[in-house]
Amino acid sequence: MAYRDEQLNEEKVFKDPVHRYVHVRDKVIWDLIGTPEFQRLRRIKQLGTSFFTFHGAEHSRFNHSLGVYEIIRRIVENFRGHADWNDEERLLCLSAALLHDLGHGPFSHSFEKVFNLDHEDYTRDIILGDTAVNRILQRVGDDFPQKVADVIGKTYANKLVISLISSQIDADRMDYLQRDAYFTGVSYGHFDMERILRVMRPLDDQVVIKASGMHAVEDYIMSRYQMYWQVYFHPVTRSSEVILSKILHRAMHLYKGDYQFTLEPHHFVSFFDENPSLEDYLKLDESVVMYYFQIWKDEKDPILSDLCNRFVNRHLFKYIEFNPNHQFGQWMELHKLFTEAGIDPDYYLEVDSSSDLPYDFYRPGEDEERLPIHLMMQNGDLKELSRQSEIVEAISGKKRTDHKLYYAADFIEGLSDDSEIKKRILEILEG
Amino acid sequence: MAYRDEQLNEEKVFKDPVHRYVHVRDKVIWDLIGTPEFQRLRRIKQLGTSFFTFHGAEHSRFNHSLGVYEIIRRIVENFRGHADWNDEERLLCLSAALLHDLGHGPFSHSFEKVFNLDHEDYTRDIILGDTAVNRILQRVGDDFPQKVADVIGKTYANKLVISLISSQIDADRMDYLQRDAYFTGVSYGHFDMERILRVMRPLDDQVVIKASGMHAVEDYIMSRYQMYWQVYFHPVTRSSEVILSKILHRAMHLYKGDYQFTLEPHHFVSFFDENPSLEDYLKLDESVVMYYFQIWKDEKDPILSDLCNRFVNRHLFKYIEFNPNHQFGQWMELHKLFTEAGIDPDYYLEVDSSSDLPYDFYRPGEDEERLPIHLMMQNGDLKELSRQSEIVEAISGKKRTDHKLYYAADFIEGLSDDSEIKKRILEILEG
Amino acid sequence: MAYRDEQLNEEKVFKDPVHRYVHVRDKVIWDLIGTPEFQRLRRIKQLGTSFFTFHGAEHSRFNHSLGVYEIIRRIVENFRGHADWNDEERLLCLSAALLHDLGHGPFSHSFEKVFNLDHEDYTRDIILGDTAVNRILQRVGDDFPQKVADVIGKTYANKLVISLISSQIDADRMDYLQRDAYFTGVSYGHFDMERILRVMRPLDDQVVIKASGMHAVEDYIMSRYQMYWQVYFHPVTRSSEVILSKILHRAMHLYKGDYQFTLEPHHFVSFFDENPSLEDYLKLDESVVMYYFQIWKDEKDPILSDLCNRFVNRHLFKYIEFNPNHQFGQWMELHKLFTEAGIDPDYYLEVDSSSDLPYDFYRPGEDEERLPIHLMMQNGDLKELSRQSEIVEAISGKKRTDHKLYYAADFIEGLSDDSEIKKRILEILEG
Amino acid sequence: MAYRDEQLNEEKVFKDPVHRYVHVRDKVIWDLIGTPEFQRLRRIKQLGTSFFTFHGAEHSRFNHSLGVYEIIRRIVENFRGHADWNDEERLLCLSAALLHDLGHGPFSHSFEKVFNLDHEDYTRDIILGDTAVNRILQRVGDDFPQKVADVIGKTYANKLVISLISSQIDADRMDYLQRDAYFTGVSYGHFDMERILRVMRPLDDQVVIKASGMHAVEDYIMSRYQMYWQVYFHPVTRSSEVILSKILHRAMHLYKGDYQFTLEPHHFVSFFDENPSLEDYLKLDESVVMYYFQIWKDEKDPILSDLCNRFVNRHLFKYIEFNPNHQFGQWMELHKLFTEAGIDPDYYLEVDSSSDLPYDFYRPGEDEERLPIHLMMQNGDLKELSRQSEIVEAISGKKRTDHKLYYAADFIEGLSDDSEIKKRILEILEG
Repeated sequence: MAYRDEQLNEEKVFKDPVHRYVHVRDKVIWDLIGTPEFQRLRRIKQLGTSFFTFHGAEHSRFNHSLGVYEIIRRIVENFRGHADWNDEERLLCLSAALLHDLGHGPFSHSFEKVFNLDHEDYTRDIILGDTAVNRILQRVGDDFPQKVADVIGKTYANKLVISLISSQIDADRMDYLQRDAYFTGVSYGHFDMERILRVMRPLDDQVVIKASGMHAVEDYIMSRYQMYWQVYFHPVTRSSEVILSKILHRAMHLYKGDYQFTLEPHHFVSFFDENPSLEDYLKLDESVVMYYFQIWKDEKDPILSDLCNRFVNRHLFKYIEFNPNHQFGQWMELHKLFTEAGIDPDYYLEVDSSSDLPYDFYRPGEDEERLPIHLMMQNGDLKELSRQSEIVEAISGKKRTDHKLYYAADFIEGLSDDSEIKKRILEILEG
Repeated sequence: MAYRDEQLNEEKVFKDPVHRYVHVRDKVIWDLIGTPEFQRLRRIKQLGTSFFTFHGAEHSRFNHSLGVYEIIRRIVENFRGHADWNDEERLLCLSAALLHDLGHGPFSHSFEKVFNLDHEDYTRDIILGDTAVNRILQRVGDDFPQKVADVIGKTYANKLVISLISSQIDADRMDYLQRDAYFTGVSYGHFDMERILRVMRPLDDQVVIKASGMHAVEDYIMSRYQMYWQVYFHPVTRSSEVILSKILHRAMHLYKGDYQFTLEPHHFVSFFDENPSLEDYLKLDESVVMYYFQIWKDEKDPILSDLCNRFVNRHLFKYIEFNPNHQFGQWMELHKLFTEAGIDPDYYLEVDSSSDLPYDFYRPGEDEERLPIHLMMQNGDLKELSRQSEIVEAISGKKRTDHKLYYAADFIEGLSDDSEIKKRILEILEG
Repeated sequence: MAYRDEQLNEEKVFKDPVHRYVHVRDKVIWDLIGTPEFQRLRRIKQLGTSFFTFHGAEHSRFNHSLGVYEIIRRIVENFRGHADWNDEERLLCLSAALLHDLGHGPFSHSFEKVFNLDHEDYTRDIILGDTAVNRILQRVGDDFPQKVADVIGKTYANKLVISLISSQIDADRMDYLQRDAYFTGVSYGHFDMERILRVMRPLDDQVVIKASGMHAVEDYIMSRYQMYWQVYFHPVTRSSEVILSKILHRAMHLYKGDYQFTLEPHHFVSFFDENPSLEDYLKLDESVVMYYFQIWKDEKDPILSDLCNRFVNRHLFKYIEFNPNHQFGQWMELHKLFTEAGIDPDYYLEVDSSSDLPYDFYRPGEDEERLPIHLMMQNGDLKELSRQSEIVEAISGKKRTDHKLYYAADFIEGLSDDSEIKKRILEILEG
Repeated sequence: MAYRDEQLNEEKVFKDPVHRYVHVRDKVIWDLIGTPEFQRLRRIKQLGTSFFTFHGAEHSRFNHSLGVYEIIRRIVENFRGHADWNDEERLLCLSAALLHDLGHGPFSHSFEKVFNLDHEDYTRDIILGDTAVNRILQRVGDDFPQKVADVIGKTYANKLVISLISSQIDADRMDYLQRDAYFTGVSYGHFDMERILRVMRPLDDQVVIKASGMHAVEDYIMSRYQMYWQVYFHPVTRSSEVILSKILHRAMHLYKGDYQFTLEPHHFVSFFDENPSLEDYLKLDESVVMYYFQIWKDEKDPILSDLCNRFVNRHLFKYIEFNPNHQFGQWMELHKLFTEAGIDPDYYLEVDSSSDLPYDFYRPGEDEERLPIHLMMQNGDLKELSRQSEIVEAISGKKRTDHKLYYAADFIEGLSDDSEIKKRILEILEG
């Protein structure tokens, strides 16, 4: 594995608000950052539509990707010389960290669901396909692109390398918690990363945490919990995501129904066909999406036009607590009432459910098993985190779900006050 | 002046990373924030192309406008009850603060120069024209939109109100210095705003600073100085602005020359004609611009295509120190050499000069006179800041200019090594 | 209740690293801060011996007392105008907040246990006795000192006032968590106090929290949990407290045994007699204690001299996990072995146990019932915090205890290597 | 120079609020920190009496010394491998950094002036004398203590090593500016130290700064300027220092006049004789001084008693602007009037002058020449900082002096209102 790892004449630095500086001294890393595929991440927001809720959350995935790279760089520097660490994996770790989100498209969450895509497939395609990224990775070695793809795809032989990039306490999570907290301005999301990095140890095929750092890890897990509920699952953000999904559904529906768009939606066609080529995929960033939505505001289809207007001008749906499992009758009735009122319930009424599992350990046989975080005790024994930490034990394995019903409140208000339908709808919604 | 100032049922807050919270309790302010014209500011970056230099600088003018509003809100709250303050100006101040940047277009700096526009005209047009903003302001009083426009246009009768929004130590500057420092992550841009707000006093037609706060003001002026040279005039940012201007020039040139664009540039047409209507102006935000640039990357005109590729993928011009006043001969020669080498110097060679005057006091008869900052001594006397502060005195009135020559270094490198032209160009550029 | 509340000509401010500024505009508050009794708090550290563990923790109770005052000032300002708030309680709240720790002596924790004292008694005595503090409080009204004492002593009629100063989410806790985090430099202890202050509401006889602020409260409770285990109960700090207690015990033992001190311990005599007068109490601050300890380093009694040397020069005891409930036999054996080795176990061997109950709600009939934190739901209902928060529910009512055995490891090492006693001691200690 | 540099089994860390963590892996450093001479620095405040002005400023020289050590550790780590750097100087640099303030006594500024001492002599004596520090340094090599003393005394052959510890941009200044800003809570004192450390380069016998880091250095110099005038020379702090000096003068005067102290001032005797031995010197820390001042509050000499009461209870002198060079007549008259009023002007009237030279470059022949800061241009040339920076040029070599007159305002107020003396004194003081 004699890789060619050319060094820059002089270390380059990026000023980063979260990690202060991002340091690059490998020419491969520098060149990867300069590729069109990586620069494209500047045009995709890290938190999708969250900026509607937290106006500071306008940062891009470019930002985050540099951050994950920097954390891995520091971890790998700490690992140098450890018996269980092979420093030849260094450049592989750095590359995988930098590129792990490369396949994200615009507003991934909604796009993936509506168009049945998986950004991980595109990450792999960009790394292995006919791209600037691939050509640069090839310079290191013929098998290097495949290795990078394997690490990101979690199939690489050295599980230790994988766990740095994706585990319950990986560089990805550590960066986004801090970064999203910084840009939104919330007071959650802070934990002592410097300490966590200092207590991480490579051990066989995993990264373990020295027991003396347990409280820093607890703090990290609590931060994660708070960020999920305070930021990522904020109901206002989910409202804008509901509208976004509805726009995509409507546009696809119109396209399949031979609707004549004023401007032919070239960029979207292969998405509507649920089979975008890599080239098409890379062309569709968030500025292109926003361009279309602004055009579609003036489309003649009233639903597409209305929904785009809502999204562009932040005229969102209202919401109430609503559990579809217990309130199925009400759901059916609302659906019927909306239809009767001339408000298409397929576009103006939606239940959204968000769930989070703050920490879990291995349970054989379940889907998506999660590897536990192991503490290394002073005597060298390993103990699973929730066995040692009461706080973590308390929330371990507890899935929490939040259900909300979203609806176009302004349309309801717009109904005649005499209308029985309006009265009944309000009765249900306002309980 | 019996304004209708309806209050919200419950104060609304925005989480803001710089001021922690932005507080809104006037319904007018809340409704202004919800207008399409104000929401559009989310699609215009506060620092234009600076994100190419500082990846964190992706924040929008929406962000900044809320910040200026919040600072004014705090100042006006402090002023309540002062003899020289009329609290009926409160809502006017808040509205003008919120809306002061409303007319900014995409990448304003370059667009204004190339298309001969002035964002202040558009701010005025939005406030006074047929817009949602105007309709909301009208609710306060028939003359209210005009008053807001007058404050922003600096023609309002009460100069005290104007000075809160635009002076050498106004809410605008205080917000952007802190905000831009926060998002770029630089360590400049910090000063004790809380202290400055505490020592501001309304006095006749100006805001004065209690002498005990002089050092906080010194710190603010030094922050401003550092931010200009470290962030706003960063040579890499200016490189991207040079390219941006060249794109706009080239596209206009092609348009005027009856070039057939693959995609008709509808959004740009009235800009190329240097007379965009308000409606056209509002439609052109930065996602639309980026959409066109990505389309233009594939245009058949090689210059437009190349320049757009450079901008989209951050493939910028290199630069050297170059003073056109002293090096005019070299400039002429380079121009000629570029032409001979087949590299159009109108698009690939440019001198850019940036100047800053960190602080100045009134000098009768000069263009753009600047009002001085006055300190109020313990005995009530007013003294101009630079008379009291050695630091400010040292930099007062000293204009500093930086000249740089930008050029497409890769094109020069691409010339044959035998070429005499190449040798001579490199001789001049590398001194 | 027509109190005399004279205002200062001009508001005074203290620069505070935690709350940025502490604001004073009541002359009574200003004068209280200037009393010898309050200034004395500068000579008593907020965290006792914690500076041995965290070198930044050198801040005094003076610091913290100003901070608690400032938090209450902000809360009371927010409460003004609420139906359930009587603004005539304002000055009482401020005074009680400022003075609540006034009776703390040097290294209170250890002193109180060894000499059987209660700092709350002294707080009361200072407020009601012949002191500068009392004379200033009297200026407000004859019954004012008594009211202040009642609030601090939790016997005041208006329970709402008491709950601001002492409850599970009071100004005292909010200040010390943030302040102690700031000075130690740990990354725990941060929570969004600004938000908590905004969601606090006076309701009948308690302070409730608007439900929308629940997560900020969760964060506060988790901070509290982390600070207890990471800072307050740090085993190194407890080691120095063990030594401190041993010094006091030894000195008292010598005094009672008619030992002739080289320097008569005037300041300690009434403490040894377990009945210090108020005057004696106020004279013994931490500089006086440290003076004596330095003198006692040179006393001829070897135990007193050795212990003082350990404390002054941070030559602490080592520790191991040790549960006296389960390891009583080992404890007995160690005691015996130490005695045989000529190392007095009464001074050189000690079990220390620390317990914390992070949050609890009311359980009738138990000692020291704790009032719950109530959330106010949107419909006005009150719900106890742990019913709404899974995180809090998880840790609610769970008392955690940590036991450690402290011993003079250097003395054991100093024993002859052949010694059977040494071997057996090490066997037990090193398990 | 084959030094014995034993490493610790495991790196030790101190949590530091300014540098986050202080790292120790050399056994010598660890052992030095544990010596009584170094632990004594915990009992000497970094900013002397500044805590009277900024209540947060209670941090000790122990704190600061660890900080300087940590900065040097980072610099030396960066230097490793540079052609002009000899890594064998590493341990010497670390030791000198840690110990550079070792000879400071209590409230050094005042003690040194009154008793005619120089803390640098004591630093040298501790390092070279019969101390724990000396014995540990000896373990490295017989000549090592002398080398450490030479570096601190600025006589060491390798000037590069000296300049790390004492120059216009050394580790000492970088630590105290940040640390004092942190503990006082002022917003000055911040600069981008991480950047400065990255642009420092060893070059022959000095440390130079890469030109690209010029603005970070400007920021550092401005921070220094602001800290001097906002914190270090704050008039309230100087008021307490005036009183402190007066106490020491009075006590010495009484001692020399055969006054019988209630408690024999053992710790002070050799200071009064202006010749304390090293042993005496080390015994007198700030807790001992505070102990005496509290005892002296009750001395029968009214001046000593009054002054100690003022110091202990922060009952300070008032001050006005007063230039003794221009107001000599008034000074003479005040002196006379105070005497006539029975207020001893030797103890209750004082002019204090503070001066600062923010930055200077070498001027041959002047006292206390200062080495300039050199920038290293891209082409390798060196330029003196003020030639490149307008800001620094503006303040370079400009000495600023502030004069204040301090007096016991309460004594003046206490004079009979009819008194002509009182009227005349107030006339002069209140201008």
